[in-house]
Amino acid sequence: MFKVNENYKNLKASYLFKTVATKKAAYAKDHPEADIINMGIGDVTLPICPAATLAMAKEALAMGEKATFKGYPDYYGEPYLLEAIGNYYKNSIGVELDPEEINVTCGAKEDVSNILDIFSTDNRVVVPDPVYPVYLDSNIMDGRKVSFITGNVENGFLPMPDESLDGDIFYICSPNNPTGACYNRDQLKVWVDFALKKGAVILYDAAYEIFIEDADCPRSIFEIEGARRCAIEFCSLSKTAGFTGVRCGYTVIPKELVASDGSSLLSMWKRRQSTKFNGVGHITQRGAAAVFTPEGLAQIRANIAYYKENTRTMMKTFDKLGISYYGGKNSPYIWLRCPNGMGSWEFFDLLLEKANVVGIPGEGFGKSGEGFFRLSGFGDHARTAEAMERLEKLLG
Amino acid sequence: MFKVNENYKNLKASYLFKTVATKKAAYAKDHPEADIINMGIGDVTLPICPAATLAMAKEALAMGEKATFKGYPDYYGEPYLLEAIGNYYKNSIGVELDPEEINVTCGAKEDVSNILDIFSTDNRVVVPDPVYPVYLDSNIMDGRKVSFITGNVENGFLPMPDESLDGDIFYICSPNNPTGACYNRDQLKVWVDFALKKGAVILYDAAYEIFIEDADCPRSIFEIEGARRCAIEFCSLSKTAGFTGVRCGYTVIPKELVASDGSSLLSMWKRRQSTKFNGVGHITQRGAAAVFTPEGLAQIRANIAYYKENTRTMMKTFDKLGISYYGGKNSPYIWLRCPNGMGSWEFFDLLLEKANVVGIPGEGFGKSGEGFFRLSGFGDHARTAEAMERLEKLLG
Repeated sequence: MFKVNENYKNLKASYLFKTVATKKAAYAKDHPEADIINMGIGDVTLPICPAATLAMAKEALAMGEKATFKGYPDYYGEPYLLEAIGNYYKNSIGVELDPEEINVTCGAKEDVSNILDIFSTDNRVVVPDPVYPVYLDSNIMDGRKVSFITGNVENGFLPMPDESLDGDIFYICSPNNPTGACYNRDQLKVWVDFALKKGAVILYDAAYEIFIEDADCPRSIFEIEGARRCAIEFCSLSKTAGFTGVRCGYTVIPKELVASDGSSLLSMWKRRQSTKFNGVGHITQRGAAAVFTPEGLAQIRANIAYYKENTRTMMKTFDKLGISYYGGKNSPYIWLRCPNGMGSWEFFDLLLEKANVVGIPGEGFGKSGEGFFRLSGFGDHARTAEAMERLEKLLG
Repeated sequence: MFKVNENYKNLKASYLFKTVATKKAAYAKDHPEADIINMGIGDVTLPICPAATLAMAKEALAMGEKATFKGYPDYYGEPYLLEAIGNYYKNSIGVELDPEEINVTCGAKEDVSNILDIFSTDNRVVVPDPVYPVYLDSNIMDGRKVSFITGNVENGFLPMPDESLDGDIFYICSPNNPTGACYNRDQLKVWVDFALKKGAVILYDAAYEIFIEDADCPRSIFEIEGARRCAIEFCSLSKTAGFTGVRCGYTVIPKELVASDGSSLLSMWKRRQSTKFNGVGHITQRGAAAVFTPEGLAQIRANIAYYKENTRTMMKTFDKLGISYYGGKNSPYIWLRCPNGMGSWEFFDLLLEKANVVGIPGEGFGKSGEGFFRLSGFGDHARTAEAMERLEKLLG
């Protein structure tokens, strides 16, 4: 008789977004006149830049012509896209990569999970709390032991390692989702040195790197000396270029990253991908490459600036209200402390009922998120300003 | 110190396609005048049908407009595509499915591997030989015990179970890649009854179903009574609609398929997908849905008929030459016995050198492929006819 993967029984169901949606719908039904503003969205809202949409439309039509039709894509990305991403790293971030180290995929969510295939299930995994829930769940599915490292007010939601911290695989998400906190160069150097000393690997999620403003905050972990021997970096066009509904990301594995038995993680990943994956479609890859042209970069930066205007509007409000918060400057998210010692859900209910504003209770991202609240800058200017006016009235 | 997945060390490197390419390139270099015909291709060559390319181009442009932009897709497929696939099953195949049982993904290759996540690594896996190498390798990566069931001349490359056959997970690929052999209704019923009796699950790869001509050969395993309690079906638009370079497939898991502990495999798969996957891009899904419109279906059937004309040309030649073969009728592939007891590579060299025709030696698909050879119908009419004339001259 076939047996299922028993580890799935250790997964906890998350009702966070479902509960948010249910409460919102119930309130809207009882108050049909209410003008509810959704500040909870983790998805982008601006349309994809014309450089990318035109490139994709053109490639779609080219796939219909005998002379320009293309079959199976390269497992790891078409050469022109690897070159475009390599140039982005070089010119925008200041990091030199070998194109072979860049692996194009369907997105960072897929990759931060799939990368686990090449690691033993014996590794001890350390995940920050609060954080994006996928790191935890995909390790539970494989049966790996997971422990947490706590982000809190004391460390500015940027937990640091100390000698007593044990683990083989460490996840870092910087800028962090949901807190928006972003490690600076010195902090990341401590992490890299720690990983090298322990013989650990860092899985570095840089999905929000484009939002970084502080010159002191690296946009790639490979800006840090030594990271090429201990880190894998995941990035995505989802937030960079509004590709959440297109699906394209990239994972960088340096050639120097080898296990104690000499196994190259890059070679193992390429074996994994050529067996269990068949590449990203040509239309998507053409769109992605267009993002990295000078024209495309100018267009996506305008979009990022638009979202940043929203976070500035929010920061002004919370500064005025004297409510402490994290993120905003290097992130599309504001992570605020619920005022007056309120719990996350208590504050959620207050905002919904008294200001008709919806946000995300922090505890949905981990135990340490209790008493915090995530607001998103992915909305539009007028609605964000309107939401902040209501908050000022309610909490001022 | 982090540890890698040791199972990767049990993978055998496959040099099949690399050796084919190297030998071909070396011959071409030494004989620059040679007009080499590639009959080895496993990829499609006809452009994508206009119904699909126009739908994709339109959606690409829509993603650039505020009013029609869409963010994250549904994890399991957009409702309009689930409905389109459901209607295809109903109207073209005669199988009724609940849309919830259909899961849209990036392709069958990805799914036949990813599905393993929900199964224990303790399951004993049975894989046909010869077959598509992904089934074997993705199980080796997980550390599952794999045994083989032999396809050969005696069983027409359609191995059947007997009482002594042990296993928990059975792969079936019908029509088979590379042999082109296709199970009929009675044979599949034996497999389904066997799986139900054993409490085993059948992973049914129907990627080539559109090539089936014989009314007696099911195009879906769900045409067989009882299959809803023991089978998962994988299909893809790669061969159906020339989507190898677009990437879209679908996996059907019936609600009745439960493990001995009551776990629903459909629920487990949905949990897997919502954690480790973020859906297929909207542009791709619009293209896929267009394939299943009456216009799209007429267009893709014309393409399939074109490829089938190639296999008919090949079958006529081998009938004339008295060379036995499998496939062709329900498949884009011809699987022929190398004449005069030649080995696969011996025959490869002969064809390359004496007829300037390239095919794929059968042993690349498993031990039982030794002495056999795969030729593809994915080329064009004139070149296929030319290749067959050369074979008639050489072997006649």
